[in-house]
Amino acid sequence: MSTIPFNNYSSAKADNLISGLATKSPASLIHLRNEAEQLFSHLHSISKDKLGVTRESYGAGENMAMDFIEDYALREGLHAYRDKAANLVIELEPVTEDQKHIIIGSHLDSVPQGGNYDGSAGVIAGLLCLIEMKRSGLSTEFPLKVMALRGEESAWFGACYLGAKAILGVLKESELELTHRNNGKTLHEQMKLCGADVKRIKQNNPLVDLSKIAAYLELHIEQGPVLVARELPVAAVTGIRGNFRHRKIQCIGEAGHSGAVPRWLRHDAVFAFSDLITRIDDHWTTILEHGGDLVLTTGMLATNKENHALTRIPGEVTFSFEARSQYEQTLTALEALIHSECTTIKHERKVDFIFDEPVRTSPAILDENIIELIKAACVKENLPVEAIPSGAGHDASVFANAGIPSGMIFVRNYNGSHNPDEDMDMDDFISGVSVLLNVVMDFKDE
Amino acid sequence: MSTIPFNNYSSAKADNLISGLATKSPASLIHLRNEAEQLFSHLHSISKDKLGVTRESYGAGENMAMDFIEDYALREGLHAYRDKAANLVIELEPVTEDQKHIIIGSHLDSVPQGGNYDGSAGVIAGLLCLIEMKRSGLSTEFPLKVMALRGEESAWFGACYLGAKAILGVLKESELELTHRNNGKTLHEQMKLCGADVKRIKQNNPLVDLSKIAAYLELHIEQGPVLVARELPVAAVTGIRGNFRHRKIQCIGEAGHSGAVPRWLRHDAVFAFSDLITRIDDHWTTILEHGGDLVLTTGMLATNKENHALTRIPGEVTFSFEARSQYEQTLTALEALIHSECTTIKHERKVDFIFDEPVRTSPAILDENIIELIKAACVKENLPVEAIPSGAGHDASVFANAGIPSGMIFVRNYNGSHNPDEDMDMDDFISGVSVLLNVVMDFKDE
Repeated sequence: MSTIPFNNYSSAKADNLISGLATKSPASLIHLRNEAEQLFSHLHSISKDKLGVTRESYGAGENMAMDFIEDYALREGLHAYRDKAANLVIELEPVTEDQKHIIIGSHLDSVPQGGNYDGSAGVIAGLLCLIEMKRSGLSTEFPLKVMALRGEESAWFGACYLGAKAILGVLKESELELTHRNNGKTLHEQMKLCGADVKRIKQNNPLVDLSKIAAYLELHIEQGPVLVARELPVAAVTGIRGNFRHRKIQCIGEAGHSGAVPRWLRHDAVFAFSDLITRIDDHWTTILEHGGDLVLTTGMLATNKENHALTRIPGEVTFSFEARSQYEQTLTALEALIHSECTTIKHERKVDFIFDEPVRTSPAILDENIIELIKAACVKENLPVEAIPSGAGHDASVFANAGIPSGMIFVRNYNGSHNPDEDMDMDDFISGVSVLLNVVMDFKDE
Repeated sequence: MSTIPFNNYSSAKADNLISGLATKSPASLIHLRNEAEQLFSHLHSISKDKLGVTRESYGAGENMAMDFIEDYALREGLHAYRDKAANLVIELEPVTEDQKHIIIGSHLDSVPQGGNYDGSAGVIAGLLCLIEMKRSGLSTEFPLKVMALRGEESAWFGACYLGAKAILGVLKESELELTHRNNGKTLHEQMKLCGADVKRIKQNNPLVDLSKIAAYLELHIEQGPVLVARELPVAAVTGIRGNFRHRKIQCIGEAGHSGAVPRWLRHDAVFAFSDLITRIDDHWTTILEHGGDLVLTTGMLATNKENHALTRIPGEVTFSFEARSQYEQTLTALEALIHSECTTIKHERKVDFIFDEPVRTSPAILDENIIELIKAACVKENLPVEAIPSGAGHDASVFANAGIPSGMIFVRNYNGSHNPDEDMDMDDFISGVSVLLNVVMDFKDE
């Protein structure tokens, strides 16, 4: 467990207050601030929905956004094309197949009625890096590819990272058969319509030479409230949390007359559930106190509506459970703890717990070297230096899990994401882009 | 807190094992066993539903049951009539208005598709007492009235103890306007159809001279599992639990991305709810350890189905809460404890709790003297001696709260009540009737 979130909160905050620079934009790319603002504003205007923006994956909204970014790049004299998965690629000069290169990736699709910054911030950040390099004649050890990866959001087909998975050769046949939430067409059909080579993708071989990717970098708005709460404009990302999920756990007790059954003869499913959650909450606190990374959620919970009543001891309660952590061993340990607590509660309260099959996603470890480069860039840009985990998933996890050194930069964002109220300060964004460009410039192969 | 339930469990059980009499019927009324069985069996046959029995309050099923019991009594040479609330009254000889008397009361209505013993056991017990007195020429200090009280179950009109409340002058005008769950007629109309003097009942004066009621006695199946678990054929009842009830308490937190919000920034409604229930469960245990009487139930519980999700921190959870105790001060103390724990949790977890107006029912204290007579009768009948509280409500509570010395005898019953599986052993019933008759014979005015 290398970089521990939150445990150096006060010192970071103190540095921050001493330097007085946290709220001040770094000088480096501040001249691109208005251009950035106009790019976001135009993107918003072409994808505006009744509420927020809607840019369907492998569909009209994403196409429109991609065309806009491509046209803009071409007008700036950059090179642009669509790859075999219909992702947009932008380069300073054409990168040949044998050239080792760095990718800056992100996505342009959005959830229905989502916010304007989720995904697009990373693509525009990459574009601005290329624009800055072009205009200033900057050169880097490795040529840069900026990619707008298709279908990052699972909202449309029920699966995510589609464009990234396709080029890395890991898009499953079953995923190609998923249907669009509105028009009922399969992903296969929609990809074809967008110009992807589905036949090649189906072969499950990488569409590019992975050994030529020196690094994958991604800038993204933070989708949680940590940077806001800790007054940090940007942060390095330590890793992307994996998870295990139960959609339905049942606690089975015994229904009975609420007045007539004393405590010692009750098998109350709700009290047993509460006991379980409280025990798990205690373990959670302990794990955090020891520097672990963990978030736990029971998002859905209900007694049985068919027969529950104010005056009936609940004989059944159903709930979901999700655990996320950067560390596989934390997930494994927690899962064992839950089952051990359930055994204790079963014994004490004479109830039963029935678990559905968990769905598991492995954590993605981000590259130590890149994290250090991001931190160093923050120092150069007079920004507070911090690293936090990502709770949400990102395209970066697909690259990291394919063995490509990957790194992410979070930019402070208010009001969460996947909603029209996403709110990123343009100064924070420019700070993030400055850090990103520094990392590209400083990156050396090991 | 006079008689404490459960704290002499082991000694009662031990006595029981030593005497070896628990499973043996007392000799006294065993000759009425077959007659009792036939009475219950006939009652079942005339009120049989697809499942269990259905005897509507102030309606066809109750009428039919009442006619059957009345006819039976008349054939035995007993005196019978309907009072001003259309309750059935059976006497050895007509009791004059100035005669101080004892009432044995219970009810003949049932919940829809309920069990055959809930209520009817008490009426048949009273009838058998009169039959035994008639046949054996037994006399008592106070004449006996056996009453089949109308409308004890709230299942039909949403209010309970209707016949008892009517004769005691406490049936509310609003209750008279309640409508029948099936035919939509008001209680007012249904009472009239059954021959009640609704005009008089509306005046809210007792329809009988309360000062002439020396005692009210009721035999009832236990609706909980205590007598079964403790291997007791019968028990005295110490009191009828009062309660306070919240149909809807909301815990309001803040929804958020399940992966992206760390524990310290969460306002998780489900974890807060679980914390509350666990704290209250601890208090419950402490209260029981100190000899208190309390049962607690959260029968209905749900996150918001409109927007809950596996990967969304629950911003809201809604739940019901009911507390029942024999002791008003326990209910008052517990209510204060809940609000104090909510305040702590509000502070710690940054959530809010919104309570609806509680509905309160006062406990009914049963008469110490009668409890002692019941216990003495158990000794005479070679039965284990025990007293437990009643969690369910009974007609006895209306009489007790009208200042009439009241007592109850519970008879062991398997599988709870308000369901077709109620199961009372006829030997246990005869034990209960024997105890009841002893109490009537031994009762002296103070």
